[in-house]
Amino acid sequence: MDFKLTVLGCGSATPTLRFSPSAQVAAHGSDLFLFDCGEGTQLKLRRGGFNFQRIGHVFISHLHGDHYLGLQGLLSTMQLLGRTKPIHIYAHEHLEELTALQLRISRSHFRFEVHWCALTYSDKTIIAETDRLEVHSFPLDHRIPTCGFVISEKPKPRNIRPECIERYNIPVPRIRQIKAGADLTLDDGTVVPNAELTLDPDPLRSYAYCSDTAYSPSTATYVKGVDLLYHESTFLEDRAARAAKTHHSTARQAARVASEAGAGRLLLGHFSARYRDTTSFEEEAREIFPRSFAAEEGMTIDVAL
Amino acid sequence: MDFKLTVLGCGSATPTLRFSPSAQVAAHGSDLFLFDCGEGTQLKLRRGGFNFQRIGHVFISHLHGDHYLGLQGLLSTMQLLGRTKPIHIYAHEHLEELTALQLRISRSHFRFEVHWCALTYSDKTIIAETDRLEVHSFPLDHRIPTCGFVISEKPKPRNIRPECIERYNIPVPRIRQIKAGADLTLDDGTVVPNAELTLDPDPLRSYAYCSDTAYSPSTATYVKGVDLLYHESTFLEDRAARAAKTHHSTARQAARVASEAGAGRLLLGHFSARYRDTTSFEEEAREIFPRSFAAEEGMTIDVAL
Repeated sequence: MDFKLTVLGCGSATPTLRFSPSAQVAAHGSDLFLFDCGEGTQLKLRRGGFNFQRIGHVFISHLHGDHYLGLQGLLSTMQLLGRTKPIHIYAHEHLEELTALQLRISRSHFRFEVHWCALTYSDKTIIAETDRLEVHSFPLDHRIPTCGFVISEKPKPRNIRPECIERYNIPVPRIRQIKAGADLTLDDGTVVPNAELTLDPDPLRSYAYCSDTAYSPSTATYVKGVDLLYHESTFLEDRAARAAKTHHSTARQAARVASEAGAGRLLLGHFSARYRDTTSFEEEAREIFPRSFAAEEGMTIDVAL
Repeated sequence: MDFKLTVLGCGSATPTLRFSPSAQVAAHGSDLFLFDCGEGTQLKLRRGGFNFQRIGHVFISHLHGDHYLGLQGLLSTMQLLGRTKPIHIYAHEHLEELTALQLRISRSHFRFEVHWCALTYSDKTIIAETDRLEVHSFPLDHRIPTCGFVISEKPKPRNIRPECIERYNIPVPRIRQIKAGADLTLDDGTVVPNAELTLDPDPLRSYAYCSDTAYSPSTATYVKGVDLLYHESTFLEDRAARAAKTHHSTARQAARVASEAGAGRLLLGHFSARYRDTTSFEEEAREIFPRSFAAEEGMTIDVAL
């Protein structure tokens, strides 16, 4: 099953014609998961051909405008397009209050259920779960309460060897048990061990979203071993002082987190409007973590290439 | 002095790749006046090359999201770009409350003054005034309290005939008095009447913005004689029932208002996302009011061509 990430916006607080505010969408099969929702996200989703109604979960890292100002418009459009399916929104509790006020002043309401989940900021916590995935939040180090998120596949069943099904004429109800690890007892009492019947399951893939944050050694522990790590790099190292002051990171610091976490690849973003070219971000990060690359709006990446 | 209108967004509640939410900017000399501020307005302003800091006045017709959701992002960008100049915002009082909540939850504040003016909805009222312009609000007929706006030039001084200045050697301090209508008394006591010294002032130009509204006969009285009238036409006449139900107008109804008001030209907009081509809007309106034309995003129009 495909597990892909599309970057909708990779700029920082001042949107420009080059960089839009933060938003990313992770697609796992046909399920869409939205990470942050800056102004204009709904148009970016349209441009990417995403079906709005397939977004079941929205994760808002923190309540600076460039990470959430597109949400009200997106929800409103979902409503106008006839949504009935519930949506789950994970954010600071203030966002629910704000949304309620926005509905009240426009004398409107949503005809679909909105399940609000208030984030906590003290430790890594499971916040969402579907049949195939789970999402954890964890605290980042920013000027206001901010969470990162890890979305990871749940343990998968073992893969049964197709030739075994035929050879032993395995009935369908037994297949699920064998995929779960059971041995097979034949009619003559012979036991065929599971290891002969199956192959290891497909590897579990995971993606971590870290925006916005200062460098923090604990981040690496929260995102240990993810296949793909997005870590903000608002600045280059020559502006490390500015990064520290504003609780943002440099490309070098992002690379350090990726290296400490043993991540598969590092995706850089949340570029300050002062930069026009992102090559320097890649160069700076690759000195520490070679598999680093800069986000581009509209780019789609396989989570575990 | 130039007096021009630029259409930034002319769609209705569901933004599409064709139509953005409502926003227009009127430029009078170097002063900018923003009418509505749907999501994405700041990017449209950038695309049009407008200097954000020249926007001194923002008029928000009503609090449906497609008319105001871009405001918080715009104000935030003005701040990040170092604005110190005050800004005046004319809107329903709830918008001030909402903005205060948005600032509180992001633990931020504006370092420039924001002067809020709460609109009233009972009659035509002067709400803003500069040296050269004044702006009136007036009630429209929509599902929630909604105002239209007329921005009009204030009476201008008479134009002094350049050849008279030389002929009578008129000192500079006297010129302003003559432009205001005074006669000139020469050293020998002869009185030169003002009519010989001056020409009529340039005509006063005005623009009216009416979005969103059902057809209402009172609208024409509020916008009597404007050079350019923007009147919403969310639908064509074949959806008049839908227009009535949602308190919107058809192109024919917009044309009727333009005709009753004796407007110079009619600009149509706020097109429903169901339409892809706006030619039908022009055709329908022109049957009643020939000088009708459909808005296009990015279009700039001389208010009194």
